[in-house]
Amino acid sequence: MTKPLILVTNDDSIVAPGIRALIAVMKEIGDVVVVAPDSPQSAMGHAITINNTLKLEHVKIDSELSTEYSCSGTPVDCVKIAVHEILKRKPDLCVSGINHGSNSSINVIYSGTMSAAVEAGIEGIPAIGFSLCDFDWNADFEPVKKYIKQITEHVLEKGLPEGVILNVNFPKEIKNGIKICRQAKAIWEEEFDKRRNPQGKDYYWLTGKFVNLDKGTDTDEWALENGYVSIVPVQFDLTAHHAIQQLNSWGL
Amino acid sequence: MTKPLILVTNDDSIVAPGIRALIAVMKEIGDVVVVAPDSPQSAMGHAITINNTLKLEHVKIDSELSTEYSCSGTPVDCVKIAVHEILKRKPDLCVSGINHGSNSSINVIYSGTMSAAVEAGIEGIPAIGFSLCDFDWNADFEPVKKYIKQITEHVLEKGLPEGVILNVNFPKEIKNGIKICRQAKAIWEEEFDKRRNPQGKDYYWLTGKFVNLDKGTDTDEWALENGYVSIVPVQFDLTAHHAIQQLNSWGL
Repeated sequence: MTKPLILVTNDDSIVAPGIRALIAVMKEIGDVVVVAPDSPQSAMGHAITINNTLKLEHVKIDSELSTEYSCSGTPVDCVKIAVHEILKRKPDLCVSGINHGSNSSINVIYSGTMSAAVEAGIEGIPAIGFSLCDFDWNADFEPVKKYIKQITEHVLEKGLPEGVILNVNFPKEIKNGIKICRQAKAIWEEEFDKRRNPQGKDYYWLTGKFVNLDKGTDTDEWALENGYVSIVPVQFDLTAHHAIQQLNSWGL
Repeated sequence: MTKPLILVTNDDSIVAPGIRALIAVMKEIGDVVVVAPDSPQSAMGHAITINNTLKLEHVKIDSELSTEYSCSGTPVDCVKIAVHEILKRKPDLCVSGINHGSNSSINVIYSGTMSAAVEAGIEGIPAIGFSLCDFDWNADFEPVKKYIKQITEHVLEKGLPEGVILNVNFPKEIKNGIKICRQAKAIWEEEFDKRRNPQGKDYYWLTGKFVNLDKGTDTDEWALENGYVSIVPVQFDLTAHHAIQQLNSWGL
């Protein structure tokens, strides 16, 4: 039987421990091709590179793989160049991560990891983004591997509904099982750290505090706070279908 | 009566003719504050700047305005720094554009213009993105101004449903009125233009062809092709709520 062809990417760069852990799991399941950014691309959202050129390097980081490429672009660029320039056929699956840090709730929209998975979804490839709620570069990815394998095998076996991508987040410490969730309503309360450069000009660092505004027990934030692995099905049809009727009553 | 406070931004940069046309309309409606990128930021999606600093310059481009700022960051950065660093109170409205080029269908997800509007929506500010289906820097924005005024005044008067942002696209030639639509299912078929640099190394330009896969007559693509102004209500809850039941039946 032919093994599934699996595209692996991320946003923390091709050398990040998170993607190395993800590659280790995927090698047990299928034929792996890695196309990932050559530098950190966190918070790049769904950005693509249209005003600059892209570089692609064949690299060898995992001694068992001859199919690893680093790309100078964003995570979404990586998926596009993988599918249209590197891979001979459409992959059976695209996995992105394991992100160093949470991509739950509103973070999904800023996340390069999830945007890569969403791009694969747009291109008709079943896709999953994985994130661990631990920003430490040396976070322990061992405990999440068995869940990644289980979820991935389920997706390969059952498929995903059309236009749906999975956003999987792991709590720092898994105390319960897996929970299917909706995206919590949450925001970042920004605080700009204003400083003065040696030439006397002001500049800013974007910082902020995450605030969960959602008391629901069916959200990803609730699941993660309670030690569950959260899975949110995500879509790229952004239409607020429920609002169409109301807008039609405006008589514009 | 106090005039509404209106934040204006875009992704084509603060000097683009599109934002100048938008500012002209907004000055008729309210008190205008402009915070827009100092360089083109098309296709930046929902990217934010976390690994670099941000510069903010007080500039004077419109002789009637003393409240224009250029920012070194992405369109989403512009909204964040406007709301949290520049404005004394939450604006009554945020408008983004007028984009030079379409942000209909799947383009909404790559668009810096729409991501700025969506960021405002996340922060609880009614928001509208405007785009003209004409990439020409010297496109004629005059015919769209009356529609922008009409739609903006409606939003200020009636408000928007919570969590909903408007994605307004204008056809190059308006032959009909306004149509409330859903996002068409469409993709970009990528083609990478591979070239060799003077040092003998390969590099790539991302190019592609837009393909509308959706035959519906309720889509933004249909509306634009038929000379209508399209309005799609957009949301940032990306949860595919319809898929939750199915995933719960997997027994994960």
